[in-house]
Amino acid sequence: MSGLLWQKPGVAVDAGIQAFLAGDDVVLDREFFLHDIAASRVHAQGLRQIGILSDDELAGLERELDALADDFRSGAFVLDATFEDGHSAIEARLTRRLGDAGRRIHTGRSRNDQVLVATRLWLKDQLATTRALCVEVAGIALDRARAEADVPLPGYSHLQRAVVSSLGMWWAGWAEAFIDDAVRAGHTRDWLDANPMGSAAGYGVNLPLQRDAATQALGFARLQVSATYAQLSRGKFEIAALEALGSAVGDLRRLAWDLSLFTSTEFGFVTLPARYTTGSSIMPNKRNPDVIELMRATYASVTAARSELEHLLSLPSGYHRDLQLGKGALVHGFGKGLQALSLLPDLLRHLDWDQVRMRAALEPSMYATDLAVDMARDGVPFRDAYRQAADPARWAQGDPAASLAARSSPGAAGDLRLDVLHTRLDALQAAAVDG
Amino acid sequence: MSGLLWQKPGVAVDAGIQAFLAGDDVVLDREFFLHDIAASRVHAQGLRQIGILSDDELAGLERELDALADDFRSGAFVLDATFEDGHSAIEARLTRRLGDAGRRIHTGRSRNDQVLVATRLWLKDQLATTRALCVEVAGIALDRARAEADVPLPGYSHLQRAVVSSLGMWWAGWAEAFIDDAVRAGHTRDWLDANPMGSAAGYGVNLPLQRDAATQALGFARLQVSATYAQLSRGKFEIAALEALGSAVGDLRRLAWDLSLFTSTEFGFVTLPARYTTGSSIMPNKRNPDVIELMRATYASVTAARSELEHLLSLPSGYHRDLQLGKGALVHGFGKGLQALSLLPDLLRHLDWDQVRMRAALEPSMYATDLAVDMARDGVPFRDAYRQAADPARWAQGDPAASLAARSSPGAAGDLRLDVLHTRLDALQAAAVDG
Amino acid sequence: MSGLLWQKPGVAVDAGIQAFLAGDDVVLDREFFLHDIAASRVHAQGLRQIGILSDDELAGLERELDALADDFRSGAFVLDATFEDGHSAIEARLTRRLGDAGRRIHTGRSRNDQVLVATRLWLKDQLATTRALCVEVAGIALDRARAEADVPLPGYSHLQRAVVSSLGMWWAGWAEAFIDDAVRAGHTRDWLDANPMGSAAGYGVNLPLQRDAATQALGFARLQVSATYAQLSRGKFEIAALEALGSAVGDLRRLAWDLSLFTSTEFGFVTLPARYTTGSSIMPNKRNPDVIELMRATYASVTAARSELEHLLSLPSGYHRDLQLGKGALVHGFGKGLQALSLLPDLLRHLDWDQVRMRAALEPSMYATDLAVDMARDGVPFRDAYRQAADPARWAQGDPAASLAARSSPGAAGDLRLDVLHTRLDALQAAAVDG
Amino acid sequence: MSGLLWQKPGVAVDAGIQAFLAGDDVVLDREFFLHDIAASRVHAQGLRQIGILSDDELAGLERELDALADDFRSGAFVLDATFEDGHSAIEARLTRRLGDAGRRIHTGRSRNDQVLVATRLWLKDQLATTRALCVEVAGIALDRARAEADVPLPGYSHLQRAVVSSLGMWWAGWAEAFIDDAVRAGHTRDWLDANPMGSAAGYGVNLPLQRDAATQALGFARLQVSATYAQLSRGKFEIAALEALGSAVGDLRRLAWDLSLFTSTEFGFVTLPARYTTGSSIMPNKRNPDVIELMRATYASVTAARSELEHLLSLPSGYHRDLQLGKGALVHGFGKGLQALSLLPDLLRHLDWDQVRMRAALEPSMYATDLAVDMARDGVPFRDAYRQAADPARWAQGDPAASLAARSSPGAAGDLRLDVLHTRLDALQAAAVDG
Repeated sequence: MSGLLWQKPGVAVDAGIQAFLAGDDVVLDREFFLHDIAASRVHAQGLRQIGILSDDELAGLERELDALADDFRSGAFVLDATFEDGHSAIEARLTRRLGDAGRRIHTGRSRNDQVLVATRLWLKDQLATTRALCVEVAGIALDRARAEADVPLPGYSHLQRAVVSSLGMWWAGWAEAFIDDAVRAGHTRDWLDANPMGSAAGYGVNLPLQRDAATQALGFARLQVSATYAQLSRGKFEIAALEALGSAVGDLRRLAWDLSLFTSTEFGFVTLPARYTTGSSIMPNKRNPDVIELMRATYASVTAARSELEHLLSLPSGYHRDLQLGKGALVHGFGKGLQALSLLPDLLRHLDWDQVRMRAALEPSMYATDLAVDMARDGVPFRDAYRQAADPARWAQGDPAASLAARSSPGAAGDLRLDVLHTRLDALQAAAVDG
Repeated sequence: MSGLLWQKPGVAVDAGIQAFLAGDDVVLDREFFLHDIAASRVHAQGLRQIGILSDDELAGLERELDALADDFRSGAFVLDATFEDGHSAIEARLTRRLGDAGRRIHTGRSRNDQVLVATRLWLKDQLATTRALCVEVAGIALDRARAEADVPLPGYSHLQRAVVSSLGMWWAGWAEAFIDDAVRAGHTRDWLDANPMGSAAGYGVNLPLQRDAATQALGFARLQVSATYAQLSRGKFEIAALEALGSAVGDLRRLAWDLSLFTSTEFGFVTLPARYTTGSSIMPNKRNPDVIELMRATYASVTAARSELEHLLSLPSGYHRDLQLGKGALVHGFGKGLQALSLLPDLLRHLDWDQVRMRAALEPSMYATDLAVDMARDGVPFRDAYRQAADPARWAQGDPAASLAARSSPGAAGDLRLDVLHTRLDALQAAAVDG
Repeated sequence: MSGLLWQKPGVAVDAGIQAFLAGDDVVLDREFFLHDIAASRVHAQGLRQIGILSDDELAGLERELDALADDFRSGAFVLDATFEDGHSAIEARLTRRLGDAGRRIHTGRSRNDQVLVATRLWLKDQLATTRALCVEVAGIALDRARAEADVPLPGYSHLQRAVVSSLGMWWAGWAEAFIDDAVRAGHTRDWLDANPMGSAAGYGVNLPLQRDAATQALGFARLQVSATYAQLSRGKFEIAALEALGSAVGDLRRLAWDLSLFTSTEFGFVTLPARYTTGSSIMPNKRNPDVIELMRATYASVTAARSELEHLLSLPSGYHRDLQLGKGALVHGFGKGLQALSLLPDLLRHLDWDQVRMRAALEPSMYATDLAVDMARDGVPFRDAYRQAADPARWAQGDPAASLAARSSPGAAGDLRLDVLHTRLDALQAAAVDG
Repeated sequence: MSGLLWQKPGVAVDAGIQAFLAGDDVVLDREFFLHDIAASRVHAQGLRQIGILSDDELAGLERELDALADDFRSGAFVLDATFEDGHSAIEARLTRRLGDAGRRIHTGRSRNDQVLVATRLWLKDQLATTRALCVEVAGIALDRARAEADVPLPGYSHLQRAVVSSLGMWWAGWAEAFIDDAVRAGHTRDWLDANPMGSAAGYGVNLPLQRDAATQALGFARLQVSATYAQLSRGKFEIAALEALGSAVGDLRRLAWDLSLFTSTEFGFVTLPARYTTGSSIMPNKRNPDVIELMRATYASVTAARSELEHLLSLPSGYHRDLQLGKGALVHGFGKGLQALSLLPDLLRHLDWDQVRMRAALEPSMYATDLAVDMARDGVPFRDAYRQAADPARWAQGDPAASLAARSSPGAAGDLRLDVLHTRLDALQAAAVDG
């Protein structure tokens, strides 16, 4: 590892200990590196505004930061274990290329500042992506709800056959679920859209940092005012972001569970395109729906990441090194979560229903509730109607189309109100955020 | 237990099994009982609108539901294990008193409907309370930040003395933290402010339920459209609510940690009023800050409740009995969480600082960062200034007031910007929700 | 609340704060009250041995402690919120009845001592019960494995039909699972079977407490030596116990999942006795397997309890009031977990298989693996055999009995080795611990 | 990626989907690769025993497996994303080098078999390492307990000064804690020391696999009998292992908390060697105890890994792809956990106490408990003695040495019973397992 910024003469550094301290930090910093560079550029502009840098120094720093970003994107620069972390790597490069201008870049900021602002920008991106994916999923679900509104599907509770349902109801449910998830991701993004840069080590600094200008330059909605709160929000905001992601991935978990059942031979309602399945190394006959199983499993990664972060935060205020471990958790959770969500739109587009199997699963008992309610409408007190309709002798194969058409309570098959959902979705699309 | 609604002739009921199924459900239903009654009233009004009930029947039901609410509040009616659950208790009472009108009340609804709507109303209340408590805490913190703005306090990172801080910075940090928590509680309340009533067993019903009118009558902001999503949102919304609560209680955890340290003899910065402490049964000398320890511990209850709920939700869509266990978790999490938060305002009002001890903990090294930055402002590249300022020979006892006054970066002691926080807080107070 | 042991003159007690501090502690203490009394009895005997009590005083204390236990069991004494906690309740009663002897009982011990030892005894009981239930479940599974060894059952992976399996294999799997769980519960019980009493406030006391004699009198296997470790083990041992319970309840979760699928109409392999099902309040046709769903859900309660405890323990050594919250978590986890496990033996005894449905689910593809392996035995390299056997043209309906009989790898249907499992189970039964 | 074992003609493979399915699986497989090779060698020997392989084929396979292991160790063979997973990589290499012998190696086994046995062997190693580290830590703690038995240290509860304690008591507490942790790691290793190989896809195979011989050859203590249980134990055993690790890392968390406090200026009891500290990028004065903070934080990683695994297991029996995600969690948890534990022995060896500061923190009130107990020994009922000793007028600076010497309850400073702990430690060392 190259020279440590804070190393002092005469203090030996132990390789094993440094490895423990570094962990995979520098590799994780790749995720945040471009954001760190972007924020460093704005920080340099601020230092120019208060006279710490000259015009020439600023120009040099901007040029070299842009070059570093290009080199990183192209692979010409690799962020690896030769650096303590990404922050040190930036300063080292600038100092090597620019001399004193590089040595001035850290004026008035700490590495915590850099972590905070780069992570904040990254979280905004991740939440924008989460939101966009939820919007996309909801759109597909809504389209298919309309297209397949009247296709009968058995409705279950307790995994037991309950009443006649429809693809319209099934899809509309997921549409509304992912609309809510998109709203939540958007709320959460707005909530944490505050510029933390300028807190120094959590107590500010004896310089008139131009934090308002930086807020604007970095595209933040507002300033995170308090320097101590900037520190206190570390981990807190990451958890909130993972929770918003978890809301969507939790719905994905239940959706994947439906598909896991529906693709079993016993249910047999859905066929997946072959590319979503894999085989067995020993059983020649198998085609397994691994993709939906891993989608279902992804919730575990998202919530474990959240759990890892929350366990770190049982601390007094101020920065503590414990917080470093949150970086890996964050990347793990969003990495797995967004990968799973990003495959969902195409999967949903290509679900192939077996309407014959679905219809075959509709049995006489599933019309008993209709019957009881019909009797109630005709004047029999419901509790009496219920008892009469519980007699299997009264059950008969019904007409699913009629049952669905008569289901006139709003949000049921006879009155799906997809237009209301469309209105919400349109509003989301109109207000699409740019990450 | 009195007769089960769904019991069929010839099916024996096993007491041990019923006890397992019932759990403490009926006791937990006390939390939700008044909401269940209120929603039942609106449901009855809807049944009148579609002709299931006569005017007289509705009047009877409204009268008896009001009476039941009164009896419950007064203790004349006790919801206990003689009932399967609160929902059955309502129907049983109405039937006993009104005959057929009681037997009609359940037309077009399920107990899941009742659970959903009562829980939703309850969640809105709890989140309104959470929000209000956070606003109150933030207000106190802001007042004290202004009043004690210039009182020096040692600033720590890694529990090591770092730089001079101030009570102004300490309080302002918590003020902004709880403002954010209040905003989040409000967001979450708005997000879930949707009427689920009318989903029947999750697939709607063959009646033109007047869900829009019910939405308005119950004070919901919008209709939760899809009947299947109403079911899918069970647990999902509860988790979101606990997460919003957890944001505040997580800040409380860190605040309590600060106070736990500050009330130790070693730090000695804070004295608690005696009523916040307890003694030991064996050590005559002890006065222990149990209240702040239990406040700190409360996060465990909130997050455990959330964890219990999320473990229940690895399920296909539709209702499953697993979800019942979520009720206890929810009551546990909000019960403990709000109790802890509700004690916080008064505790904060009465914190008594020992300014002598605080000042005594300020040592020369804590001015080294100021020194380095001063040098940087005077033209020395910061990295060089840093190395020079690392020399203990250069450290000298400084003037805390001067150090704080010079800390001019926005959000630091020299420019706290409390007005910005006040503006946010005022907006929150102006938009106060009624639970 | 009656007088607080540690109350000092002139210190006002705030009712709201006391309510927060007390929580439901005194109610929870009912769980531990008899153990607390038993340990108090032994503590008194120790005080006699070192001369703190006279023979008469000891006799009085023993008599009154026995009477208190009797009164508690009979309901004549109710532990309720008039007491700060169970420990204070014991001392108050003894003092009221015996005067100075009561005032001497707390010599050399703290309430933490009482909590530790009562909880330790309770944990031993709970783990003994856990172990016994696992042994019982394993015994039933083993009996049914033998009785139904040759009944064909479809074998699944990824919820897809894979190969022919058997009830013998299904039951044997659960038998071995619960044998392991029983072993683990026993290990854990042994591991924590150490007497913590005598640590006072965590630093011992200036009395030659007769801890070895107490260890023997209380039936502990060994002394927990270090007074500081006695404190450090609080929470740690509770977590270990919940983890052992979780091992069994985790297996229950998967078993319940199997049954949830198997009782669906689509699978249709199992019928539950009606007493394990409930009905719907709106759908007259439903019989829902609520018992198995709540069994499945119980894992959530056990693991949430564990999570609540572990969140409390991010603390320096020594006692902190945070730990109090662990008591409720512990009672919640074991309460729900053991209730679910205790219903399992009877449920398993009464599972009714539909062999016709099971056999009908065996399809030609499920013999493809047999075919590939047969070819491999005849000399075709397996990877080639696999490709040939993947051709559906080669699949034919096979004879399940023959397939099972040929499955000769140990632990498969052709060589179940139930005797090995029986031997392990017998050893467990022979070494049955008494709680 | 090279050819997929299970790929069928005409089925297109989607790169994005394959990337999702593969995840970082093949990289994670590096952890298990040598164990997979070792188990493959034993599997080949078994195939020879039942005539599937010839002597020559076996010799070739053994030679090539050894060569592959050598190449992997030397870096000549790199397991990377050109392979689907480690299992396929082994078969591909053997087939390329040996032709039909390679194509025969998978006879009678599945990749699940390979995962199970390789993970099981790996878990045994990890637990042996955990145990050994705990033994080492306990040994150091015990040595220092003896060497520093009589050095006074303030004893705290609630972070408040309580009574006089000693380094002897502090060290002895940790010694007994880590002895228990070592015992538990050993128990857990024994508990899961069962050979799963030979379950094929979870239902055995139509070959007389020589599972007993394989059990012996692989060094397992017993056969995991049931093929279905072999599958059911996946995840269950991993969780148990992480829980055993968590027991030790949980103690580390509390120990690190002690050190975090003790190294603060306010406490000032401990100085860390400089190599355990790092500096700040902005504050020239800082030396931060990052190592102990990361040690404390490590518990978060271990428990998050456990949580990730348990969330995956809400499944019916049989294999599901969800389980794959557990591999990363397992490597994460043990990777972080063992790295932290492995640094602990040296850290403990080099803790440097500041006895002057420790002694200075002993204040008169800390002798009040001694006083009350003394009075009780002299005949004053303890509750009266307690009230008298609560009077600060009676408190006086005491002699710490005398207080400690008089603390004669077993496990306290006056009777530490280190010999008992030594006996347990010796037994652990005598029974040292080889990983």
